Amino acid sequence: MFQWFCMCFIDEMNVACCITLLYCVVFSTEHFLWSLRNGMLKHFVRVRAIAIAISSSPKISSQLSIPLTLTFTPSLSSSTMAATDDSLRKSLADKHAAVEAQGNAVRALKAGGAPKSEIDAAIETLNALKLEKTSIERSLVGGSDTREAFRQAVVNTLERRLFYIPSFKIYRGVAGLFDYGPPGCAVKSNVLSFWRQHFVLEENMLEVDCPCVTPEVVLKASGHVDKFTDLMVKDEKTGTCYRADHLLKDFCNEKLQRDLTLSSDKVSELKHVLAMLDDFSAEELGAKIKEYGIVAPETKNTLSDPYPFNLMFQTSIGPSGLIPGFMRPETAQGIFVNFKDLYYYNGNKLPFAAAQIGQAFRNEISPRQGLLRVREFTLAEIEHFVDPQDKSHPKYAEVADLEFLMFPREQQMSGQSAKKILLRDAVSKGIVNNETLGYFIGRVYLFLTRLGVDKERLRFRQHLANEMAHYAADCWDAEIECSYGWIECVGIADRSAYDLRAHSDKSGVPLLAQEKFAEPKEVEKLVITPVKKELGLAFKGNQRMVVEALEAMPEKEALDMKAALESEGEVDFQVCTLGKNVTIKKTMVTIQKETKKEHQRVFTPSVIEPSFGIGRIIYCLFEHTFYTRPSKAGDEQLNVFRFPSLVAPIKCTVFPLVQNQKYEEVAKLISKSLTAAGISHKIDTTGTSIGKRYARTDELGVPFAITVDSTSSVTIRERDSKDQVRVDVEKAATVVKEVTEGHRTWEDVWSTFPHHSSTSTDD
Amino acid sequence: MFQWFCMCFIDEMNVACCITLLYCVVFSTEHFLWSLRNGMLKHFVRVRAIAIAISSSPKISSQLSIPLTLTFTPSLSSSTMAATDDSLRKSLADKHAAVEAQGNAVRALKAGGAPKSEIDAAIETLNALKLEKTSIERSLVGGSDTREAFRQAVVNTLERRLFYIPSFKIYRGVAGLFDYGPPGCAVKSNVLSFWRQHFVLEENMLEVDCPCVTPEVVLKASGHVDKFTDLMVKDEKTGTCYRADHLLKDFCNEKLQRDLTLSSDKVSELKHVLAMLDDFSAEELGAKIKEYGIVAPETKNTLSDPYPFNLMFQTSIGPSGLIPGFMRPETAQGIFVNFKDLYYYNGNKLPFAAAQIGQAFRNEISPRQGLLRVREFTLAEIEHFVDPQDKSHPKYAEVADLEFLMFPREQQMSGQSAKKILLRDAVSKGIVNNETLGYFIGRVYLFLTRLGVDKERLRFRQHLANEMAHYAADCWDAEIECSYGWIECVGIADRSAYDLRAHSDKSGVPLLAQEKFAEPKEVEKLVITPVKKELGLAFKGNQRMVVEALEAMPEKEALDMKAALESEGEVDFQVCTLGKNVTIKKTMVTIQKETKKEHQRVFTPSVIEPSFGIGRIIYCLFEHTFYTRPSKAGDEQLNVFRFPSLVAPIKCTVFPLVQNQKYEEVAKLISKSLTAAGISHKIDTTGTSIGKRYARTDELGVPFAITVDSTSSVTIRERDSKDQVRVDVEKAATVVKEVTEGHRTWEDVWSTFPHHSSTSTDD
Repeated sequence: MFQWFCMCFIDEMNVACCITLLYCVVFSTEHFLWSLRNGMLKHFVRVRAIAIAISSSPKISSQLSIPLTLTFTPSLSSSTMAATDDSLRKSLADKHAAVEAQGNAVRALKAGGAPKSEIDAAIETLNALKLEKTSIERSLVGGSDTREAFRQAVVNTLERRLFYIPSFKIYRGVAGLFDYGPPGCAVKSNVLSFWRQHFVLEENMLEVDCPCVTPEVVLKASGHVDKFTDLMVKDEKTGTCYRADHLLKDFCNEKLQRDLTLSSDKVSELKHVLAMLDDFSAEELGAKIKEYGIVAPETKNTLSDPYPFNLMFQTSIGPSGLIPGFMRPETAQGIFVNFKDLYYYNGNKLPFAAAQIGQAFRNEISPRQGLLRVREFTLAEIEHFVDPQDKSHPKYAEVADLEFLMFPREQQMSGQSAKKILLRDAVSKGIVNNETLGYFIGRVYLFLTRLGVDKERLRFRQHLANEMAHYAADCWDAEIECSYGWIECVGIADRSAYDLRAHSDKSGVPLLAQEKFAEPKEVEKLVITPVKKELGLAFKGNQRMVVEALEAMPEKEALDMKAALESEGEVDFQVCTLGKNVTIKKTMVTIQKETKKEHQRVFTPSVIEPSFGIGRIIYCLFEHTFYTRPSKAGDEQLNVFRFPSLVAPIKCTVFPLVQNQKYEEVAKLISKSLTAAGISHKIDTTGTSIGKRYARTDELGVPFAITVDSTSSVTIRERDSKDQVRVDVEKAATVVKEVTEGHRTWEDVWSTFPHHSSTSTDD
Repeated sequence: MFQWFCMCFIDEMNVACCITLLYCVVFSTEHFLWSLRNGMLKHFVRVRAIAIAISSSPKISSQLSIPLTLTFTPSLSSSTMAATDDSLRKSLADKHAAVEAQGNAVRALKAGGAPKSEIDAAIETLNALKLEKTSIERSLVGGSDTREAFRQAVVNTLERRLFYIPSFKIYRGVAGLFDYGPPGCAVKSNVLSFWRQHFVLEENMLEVDCPCVTPEVVLKASGHVDKFTDLMVKDEKTGTCYRADHLLKDFCNEKLQRDLTLSSDKVSELKHVLAMLDDFSAEELGAKIKEYGIVAPETKNTLSDPYPFNLMFQTSIGPSGLIPGFMRPETAQGIFVNFKDLYYYNGNKLPFAAAQIGQAFRNEISPRQGLLRVREFTLAEIEHFVDPQDKSHPKYAEVADLEFLMFPREQQMSGQSAKKILLRDAVSKGIVNNETLGYFIGRVYLFLTRLGVDKERLRFRQHLANEMAHYAADCWDAEIECSYGWIECVGIADRSAYDLRAHSDKSGVPLLAQEKFAEPKEVEKLVITPVKKELGLAFKGNQRMVVEALEAMPEKEALDMKAALESEGEVDFQVCTLGKNVTIKKTMVTIQKETKKEHQRVFTPSVIEPSFGIGRIIYCLFEHTFYTRPSKAGDEQLNVFRFPSLVAPIKCTVFPLVQNQKYEEVAKLISKSLTAAGISHKIDTTGTSIGKRYARTDELGVPFAITVDSTSSVTIRERDSKDQVRVDVEKAATVVKEVTEGHRTWEDVWSTFPHHSSTSTDD
């Protein structure tokens, strides 16, 4: 419907006007590109009809101002960005024309032998115009430069401090594979621990751990074998492969960003292509690539036609080579195939949730965008099984009063931007389909913000009707804004009974739940009884097929037949297995309503699935917590990650102020207490200046530092305020434990202990 | 050497005597089969020469008496077992002869027309003899039956309570792939958390997290591409694959166990084959299979010759199909390739350790033995990098006084069994190669016993000289005894500089450490200076090769040449690259000792590698903690896992004594406090009798149960003693937290709170 709606506008309205409207209607390109081609993927596979992606220009989001010293400003609304972009572009065209006119004037003056002073004045005007033009050009491309500079600062810090490392670096690496180095690994481990605490423990979920190696039959049932593909083109001479949509996207973006002479018609066309990217068939993509003369980026050779490439890593199980297997593209299937056992484990009661944390794999054609698009990643998935007739949640009240940025379908369609909505209102007004879905949206919000995600740059975006699978009841993505745009990090979908039905059909094992009635219920049922003797006489060898067709009639058709037989005595009846119609007479079948007693209701449960891309959440967290501040001398910018203690890779560093055996012994004593208390920490006994040592741990996001400057008491410094208190040696580990584990706030510590003013000891 | 030693005995001594000696010399078959073909594998790949496996018969270890109600008796010594087995076998042969003789006698009496009473008496004697023979046969096969019954009881409980589930069960599963269900997953997660706490945090290790997908070049350097193989045979008609050694092993075991008519020569031969199994080449294995007429087990078709099958799951990275990749067979390589960055991260200082927890893969030809031999498993590996000239460890003193079962090389060779040895003695006497290796052995002992591994069934077995890789300095396996025998669960190896050198050679990236000298050191160096002019005149076009050969001379050869030139004026010199000798005259080269100042020493670090097969440890833990006890009525045996709180999947259950709203509210209140305290627990509000509910959680190994039988106070029950105390409602969660987290013992709780005597409320 929405696609049709958009196409009407494009056909019937002035194109420029239409583009403006497109901006109003929607937001940023990225969320579609991401949501449909992200590491978590299941929407791509499981969605029947891909939505039309209406998009702002990448240009526009590149206008986001990102001061290097601090975080992004809260995101501008899409329409404002669009206006800025368009007005700049118009100014540029004006200025371009003015430069051209002035150039012509100068040439005319020269040709006409005008006096030198006059020519000089004209040249001066020309130069001034050129400067103004350059300035507008800079503004147009400047946004993305700032954003990229910010990203580069984060990524440089992350790589230098080994938060992550390109895998197999000494062998020149493999695209799309990354190692977490020590601090990154600790952050990941903390995020996963908190996930387990926040979801599995809190909700008594049934956690399972299934293998990555998966036989084909399972992924055939799930749809991955047939539909988990991207369109690929090959360099016709070298055989190098590219994602067809990436090449087209790059071409359009490059044109829009760098070619400042584009006509507004061309701008509209390219933006339209970007918007439609995900809807193009192989043929349409191929045609566009030909039309724009897109060639292989490195060799400039021509490209093959696009064709689908399955994104699963294939392998073979066992030695025979006859059992095809894949590395799982998601962890969810491991839960679905175990439904029967898990339901039994839960005492045959609904609702219950199963959860799994594990590696998933995706053989990207050409991975890009660092940690966001990788070939192997950690997923944490929940499958909450629920009676489709009762999607209430007993703990819903605990989250109902949360208020956060939501971006419902209607707001997207009517050109509004994401707004703060009370979760209770979203559920009661039916914006969010049901309580359980609402409960998980609330829990995901709490999870992400407690990790340190900036709540102003976190929104819950509802899938558009045609973005969802036909079977899905509702679907919301937790999107986090980072330098790449709005990134889908968690998908929260009500997938109805689809997955259990698919595996039940394929395996032949019923995956069902029962509701036992307190009292047996009387149920009226339609009973169709073919009279075999009559049918045998009439249809002889075909009797069986007619009987089966009669028995298989849906209720409505049977009631129609009953009415027709009663009024007319006979009726035409199509028997598909015979490929023809036959005449059924009144004597050949009885159709009657009968009342039966039923003791239970048997049904396929619905599943509500929150699915977390752990690597993406961590990367966004890195960007949200990164900032720089000037060193004391003011001669350099120092990097800081303001991780909450929960996430910080190390909770505390211990420094002897100077290299001195007594201080080192105290430091070791404190270290031992910290270890006993389970607080990860590091001793730094290098002779480096204390300021440099603070800077070094700030850059790792270590929230507290204990400096040993006497044998009786030490100072504890908080990372972001740089405030220090003085604490007895014996109490130091306990204070750090309390404050890192959230049993005490820093404010409380600050008001309890004597302050220590930083002199030469601090930065 | 050892191989030669054994072969001599076999050649020169009476075979029966030799076999007895073989029993004396060594222990059980299993540890070789396991250590060489286990899930952790690296020894197999990295070992140059596989050791001769001297073995007792599997028969023998099957004599282990395993009372179903409790644990194994401490293992009998191998020689005792051998004696029992041999004497039973001899009795059986005697009895067999007696039965035959008596049978002949009966036939003779019948043929001779003897009186019926006489014949009847003879038949009675014959029947008595037959009964005695059957009884001996039962004794011979009985041991393995008991052991298998015990295992079956454990495995049934594990599967019924979803500790694990055969993966993809609804699709009839895939051999060698298992899911951890909810309690198994919780146990695994607890084991890994404790591993992180005990090793990573305690030692400030650098934890990393690398991908499973690994490009070929990395595994080429490590040796896995070429040598990570098992020998395989194929059914010549159906193509079904089998492990060649498994078929031969099964044939020998089956013969030994079931064919009671075997001559003692044949018994010796079969046992010898079992002992040699791992040393057979493809040709030798093939010859034995032909000799014994072994055919495909199901079809009885003939088998192909054995050939090597690489055990890595192969895949292809990226869309071109041109970058071969594998699923990693171990996590260690991810650490080695990152050495340079990690060394830098550690401030360019040694020693330091890196650690990794992750999935590893092994495409078994035909997986067996449940959770011990699987196709995908979790490894936890440590690579401790150390200066080869200083393998002391600063925390060694903390473990030096531990005493536990060790099985040094010498004891194995001289026929003794594992003995308790003080770690300090083992290191000081040089039994354990160095302090760091000793330190890790001690830490692994603490780790395993704190998890709940029975210290009487845990031993550290040293690799025999020829069982180790040529480059390894020393290697010890932590072996845990379970119903499958002694299972290698942790390997602790000093692998010298091998791995870093291999990757350095292959990648061309130096993987080195430096020791900066406090003062520059004067080093005497031999300097060889070829006199190019003279050499040019003499050798013309060959000059370069002679120059290079002179410069490459080892010190000793150069000194010899210097002496010869001084005494004789000229000398014969072999130039390999020319393939001939040339005459070097005194004028052609100067060889002199010179003194140089050096500021640092550059070297490749040694690595000490503790490598943990997490799944194997967990399985052994299941067996060690499992026991049964009679129900109160005495009508059935109830299963219990006596997990320590650290490991228990759930720490506590909360039961309202009867279904009653007030009690349920109290239970919910306590549940909330437990959640807040981070204690995993479960509420059971079913109306089932309290005894049954206790039995249900005992079977999950839940250490404590809170029963709500009033609104002011509750009872807390300890699993193994079944003792109960009465505690105020408000205190219940805190008490359980303290006792499960080890801050308080149950004994302390028992002596603090009023006792509650179990009446009808208990089992």
